[in-house]
Amino acid sequence: MTQAPSPGVAETRAANLVRLYEASSVAVLGASDNRSKVGSRPIALLNKYGFAGRVYPINAKRDDIAGLRCYPDLASLPEVPDVVVFCVPARDVPAAVADCAARGVAAAVIYTSGFGEMGEAGRAVEEELRRIGHETGMILCGPNCQGTANFHNGLVLNFTSALMGERVPAGSIGLVTQSGLVGGLIVTECLNRGLGIGYLSSTGNEAGMTLSDAIGHMARDPRIRVVAGYVEQVRDMAAFRLSVEEARRNGKPVILLKVGRSPDAARAAASHTGSLAGAAELYDAAFAAMGVVVVESLEELIDLTMVFATVRHRPRGSGVGVLTNSGGLGVFSADEVFRQNLTMASFSDETVARISARLLDFGAAGNPVDISTQAYTDVDAVAAHIEHICADPAVDIVSVTFGLQFLNAEPLAEHLIRIAGQTDKPLLVSWISSDAKAAQRMQEAGVGTFSDPARALRAARRLADFAALSGAPVSVTDGEALRPGPTLVRALAENHGEIGEATMLAALAEIGLPVPAMRRAAGPADAAAAFAAMGCAAVVLKIDSPDIAHKSEVGGVRLDIRSAGDAEAATVAMLDAVRALKPEARIDGVILAEMVQGGTEAFIGVKRDPVLGPFVAVGLGGIFVEILKDVVLRPAPVSVAEAEAMIGQLKALPILKGARGRPPLDVRALAEAVATVSRLAAACPALAELDLNPVLVRAEGQGVVVLDALASVAPAPPP
Amino acid sequence: MTQAPSPGVAETRAANLVRLYEASSVAVLGASDNRSKVGSRPIALLNKYGFAGRVYPINAKRDDIAGLRCYPDLASLPEVPDVVVFCVPARDVPAAVADCAARGVAAAVIYTSGFGEMGEAGRAVEEELRRIGHETGMILCGPNCQGTANFHNGLVLNFTSALMGERVPAGSIGLVTQSGLVGGLIVTECLNRGLGIGYLSSTGNEAGMTLSDAIGHMARDPRIRVVAGYVEQVRDMAAFRLSVEEARRNGKPVILLKVGRSPDAARAAASHTGSLAGAAELYDAAFAAMGVVVVESLEELIDLTMVFATVRHRPRGSGVGVLTNSGGLGVFSADEVFRQNLTMASFSDETVARISARLLDFGAAGNPVDISTQAYTDVDAVAAHIEHICADPAVDIVSVTFGLQFLNAEPLAEHLIRIAGQTDKPLLVSWISSDAKAAQRMQEAGVGTFSDPARALRAARRLADFAALSGAPVSVTDGEALRPGPTLVRALAENHGEIGEATMLAALAEIGLPVPAMRRAAGPADAAAAFAAMGCAAVVLKIDSPDIAHKSEVGGVRLDIRSAGDAEAATVAMLDAVRALKPEARIDGVILAEMVQGGTEAFIGVKRDPVLGPFVAVGLGGIFVEILKDVVLRPAPVSVAEAEAMIGQLKALPILKGARGRPPLDVRALAEAVATVSRLAAACPALAELDLNPVLVRAEGQGVVVLDALASVAPAPPP
Repeated sequence: MTQAPSPGVAETRAANLVRLYEASSVAVLGASDNRSKVGSRPIALLNKYGFAGRVYPINAKRDDIAGLRCYPDLASLPEVPDVVVFCVPARDVPAAVADCAARGVAAAVIYTSGFGEMGEAGRAVEEELRRIGHETGMILCGPNCQGTANFHNGLVLNFTSALMGERVPAGSIGLVTQSGLVGGLIVTECLNRGLGIGYLSSTGNEAGMTLSDAIGHMARDPRIRVVAGYVEQVRDMAAFRLSVEEARRNGKPVILLKVGRSPDAARAAASHTGSLAGAAELYDAAFAAMGVVVVESLEELIDLTMVFATVRHRPRGSGVGVLTNSGGLGVFSADEVFRQNLTMASFSDETVARISARLLDFGAAGNPVDISTQAYTDVDAVAAHIEHICADPAVDIVSVTFGLQFLNAEPLAEHLIRIAGQTDKPLLVSWISSDAKAAQRMQEAGVGTFSDPARALRAARRLADFAALSGAPVSVTDGEALRPGPTLVRALAENHGEIGEATMLAALAEIGLPVPAMRRAAGPADAAAAFAAMGCAAVVLKIDSPDIAHKSEVGGVRLDIRSAGDAEAATVAMLDAVRALKPEARIDGVILAEMVQGGTEAFIGVKRDPVLGPFVAVGLGGIFVEILKDVVLRPAPVSVAEAEAMIGQLKALPILKGARGRPPLDVRALAEAVATVSRLAAACPALAELDLNPVLVRAEGQGVVVLDALASVAPAPPP
Repeated sequence: MTQAPSPGVAETRAANLVRLYEASSVAVLGASDNRSKVGSRPIALLNKYGFAGRVYPINAKRDDIAGLRCYPDLASLPEVPDVVVFCVPARDVPAAVADCAARGVAAAVIYTSGFGEMGEAGRAVEEELRRIGHETGMILCGPNCQGTANFHNGLVLNFTSALMGERVPAGSIGLVTQSGLVGGLIVTECLNRGLGIGYLSSTGNEAGMTLSDAIGHMARDPRIRVVAGYVEQVRDMAAFRLSVEEARRNGKPVILLKVGRSPDAARAAASHTGSLAGAAELYDAAFAAMGVVVVESLEELIDLTMVFATVRHRPRGSGVGVLTNSGGLGVFSADEVFRQNLTMASFSDETVARISARLLDFGAAGNPVDISTQAYTDVDAVAAHIEHICADPAVDIVSVTFGLQFLNAEPLAEHLIRIAGQTDKPLLVSWISSDAKAAQRMQEAGVGTFSDPARALRAARRLADFAALSGAPVSVTDGEALRPGPTLVRALAENHGEIGEATMLAALAEIGLPVPAMRRAAGPADAAAAFAAMGCAAVVLKIDSPDIAHKSEVGGVRLDIRSAGDAEAATVAMLDAVRALKPEARIDGVILAEMVQGGTEAFIGVKRDPVLGPFVAVGLGGIFVEILKDVVLRPAPVSVAEAEAMIGQLKALPILKGARGRPPLDVRALAEAVATVSRLAAACPALAELDLNPVLVRAEGQGVVVLDALASVAPAPPP
């Protein structure tokens, strides 16, 4: 991680980011009028999209290009341009970037490839570009990118061939992509559905400008209603989080196709995050906490982009009203409502009566409404049915499906457009194998259509989720940042790689987590004295060694010691046994811990990813974690409410809630412990991993007790 | 259930089913030349599709229709037609059906609605139609259906408006549907993808002809390669199973969109199948056992229909080779390979070397292969890469994806057509936002294209599953049908509604299932004597009552009785306690059972659905069934191998296999018990439910013991 820029540079950089999208002047380094060369595209596109600012081709071998005066170099321009587009060979890039920065250019858009993606030498050059941007505040988009575009002012500096055909209408969708080609596919699919685009940003190697910058800019632009795109990796999670939260505060979803879940990716990730979760799970946890709308295919990306861009109202709940022109499609829709965990709304008697009054004999007025062939004969009645559904108080989302709709398609489309404009509920239209002209008319009027009600209802689920999220607090803690106590501060400073049970339990006690009464003893006689001093009915005896993580495997645990004599004898036996099995281990003595019984075993864990930051995990012990992998992860820190939500997602939840006649357990105390641990994780970057296992969860009101804990410390950074 | 027809009628019926699809003559009752009436469609379509047989319009008010001589009634025709199509009002149907049957018409196709779907009166008329078909062997398609079509001989008697436009090419896809409109949508989507159709059968109310008849006919026609369609319910599961198995034996998948999973449907189903599983789960289990390819959306139905109809070779394994024109699409494809539980094939060094030799600098030769822009410049090299992937021994399935492919699209398409024809591996082509003409060319040449590699790879998963299944034995038992022993025969005959533990365990012992040593005792003194006689170290004492199902809830279970005196005292106490809590219960005394310990608790269950037949279920006890719903169901009977496969699907499998350092349990013995119970279920239709719970599964080689069992007996059928 590079250091944060100084305040002055940060302000310059913020202003430059705006200038990248709102430039008054653009220079194209390596401009060409050979249409097979990428250097021809910016000028052609700026012209096609009617950019009103000044455009300067730079090419020492030409006098003019596409009717514009051509300049030999940057120095000859009549002004310092806001943006310089780079279409020059990789070897020419570093000097030109330095020149731009020196002259005060706001942003460089570098198409050129052959940098970090090509190996060590390329990486070093890229690092130099990064440094220039970092020191001066100049925005560096790329290298190895397809560039940015603002369709509202015609500043189209992205060279995807998807822009070479039909003109993209300016609209409310902001697109970001880490793959140029995928960006082009998204643009084309938006065009196919008549969706207008506001921005397109392909960020390539992200030497100076990341997805987070692009998302942040779009989050702040009131013309943008949805940010959507394709992500391979997030390089600056803190900035990403701020951008996504800004979008959410402004009511805009960020819809992302995140790739890199394959076993190869997971294996690579496991090497630096440990085995608890691969990077894919960490991304899922981080994105879920921020409210990113994560999709799994290009089609889903476009479906959701369409629906969030065109539907003007968010659903207030999950009740769906369904109308179709076939009983089969109605049952099928009801199935998908069920699969998506939405509900089929119970229509009021009034709604059913109103629909019945104008329905044909073979139709069905309950939810799902089957209009049978009525759309062929009485389209006004069908419109009235839909309006009755929209008006029903149990309905939050309306899904209408028409198959083989050729007769009366246009008047029906006009009705749907009118109703979508009048109702304050999302109206999702599936239009299958039906009149194409009517579909286009609906598109142009801002009513997107789906090709399958299953896809419409999957989108409805996401609309409802996002609406529910909008009310929820954004992932922040309640309370102060949590400072580690003196024991942990000392242990981290000493940094022996691991912090064992005795130290770690003491450290947890210092931040208020309940741990058993505990004493250390150097030898058998000390152990007897410690037992007497503790005054417990029974203790557990454990070996105390910084070198032994799995104590029971070496005979280092004895339960249920009930007298000072037992404690002494057991210590003798244990020290002998462990020394025999682990002669190389340093042994500090033994630990006596109060024996706590009753309750169910849970665990709380911390993992830290070098890029994604710290995460907290919670689950029940035993088969739940080992066999069922029933673990819930979130980026740390979390509030108690968030920790309760995490616990609520466990499959094992019924156990905690008191399944099978047992009393409910103290879920609140477990959530408090999770929140405390997460705040500790956030406050101690040196804490690489932490495992509280087991944490005994007792009956409601009786709290939790941490019975064992082990931490690993990150290697100290080079001075 | 109606009785099976007599052998002579069954033969007539089978011959008539063939004549329905291969008729030489067709009469249309209620023929019309008013194009807005459905009576106009059969003649128009027979003409459009060039039907070569004789067509007789019947309409007393007309002399000719569409150039054909019109007849006043069936009696006036010059011959008895093979098929009569009914376009007449519901009131005229019964007499005309009887007339057809009397004259020896092979099949009646009844479009008319207003029967069973309209209530009680309609149901009675429909029952009468059913009776006529059943007694005479005349095929009755409908009523309330859109009819059948054979596109190979132009015998198109289906009136969906989907057939009124573009001509459907004759092909290898057989379609069945229980919704006319959905049938029409499927036809249209097949047309959109250039897929030829062999048959279309809309079966409506199925008064005489079911989906199973249609699937069976298509299974036997060598021109058909795939049967696909839409199902709401299977009315004749035994016949359905035979038809699906016939298709499978002939290498044809049956791909079905099964609807009716919504909570309403499940609730209705639960009332007659009990709470273990709703009807949706029973359908899933039955379809899975038969190898039906079940889909969840129209788009998936068409994707799979396309892939099974066009891909000529089945994959030999699950290794996928991927080539794309974008790194992003490659990573995305690898993700979907992972999600679908397929594997990214490890290319041989030779394959990588061959690909590298002709790849551009920015491409990647490993799997996934990223050709970057090479398809724009050197399409022959790209074709060579794909051929190298096809030739790699680790590759079973090839997925290639091209986005924004406009340059060189046609030569690339020709290469793909050629390679698909030459390789013996499935080649799946995703063609996203790319040249439409080239896509159409591929379609016409039998190479279907997908709009998203995620959809292609989901289809690949199904291809691999179906290929794996083709080698597996079809759901049949090994061994004889299992006859119940005398105890069960007697208990079923007496039919007290339920069969309690003592009787049921004895009955299970008679068919070879291990149960604990057990004695009944009428009172305390008997119990003491029984203890002495059993000679066990410890017994469990349980109340013996036909009226108490949950014994432990009324103090009716005492563990670990270790002496005759204990047995006597415990019996006194138990009888008192139970009589106090359940004064109305008949109490026969107590049961002493040998106390068996060690092992893990499982359960084996039987459920019987009135239409779908008996099912067997297996799972572990405790949280696994109660909280995690970890139960696997199959139609009974199952073989031991199938029972082992069922156990293999349990999430709890690691527990049985010896997780967490414990010894592996006797899975084989559990499987044998499941198979035995399933054969009992199949042999005893009166056994409505059976619950063996717990079944103690002991360490490998030590078998299982059934500790408790309870059966419920179906009410005796009306005499």
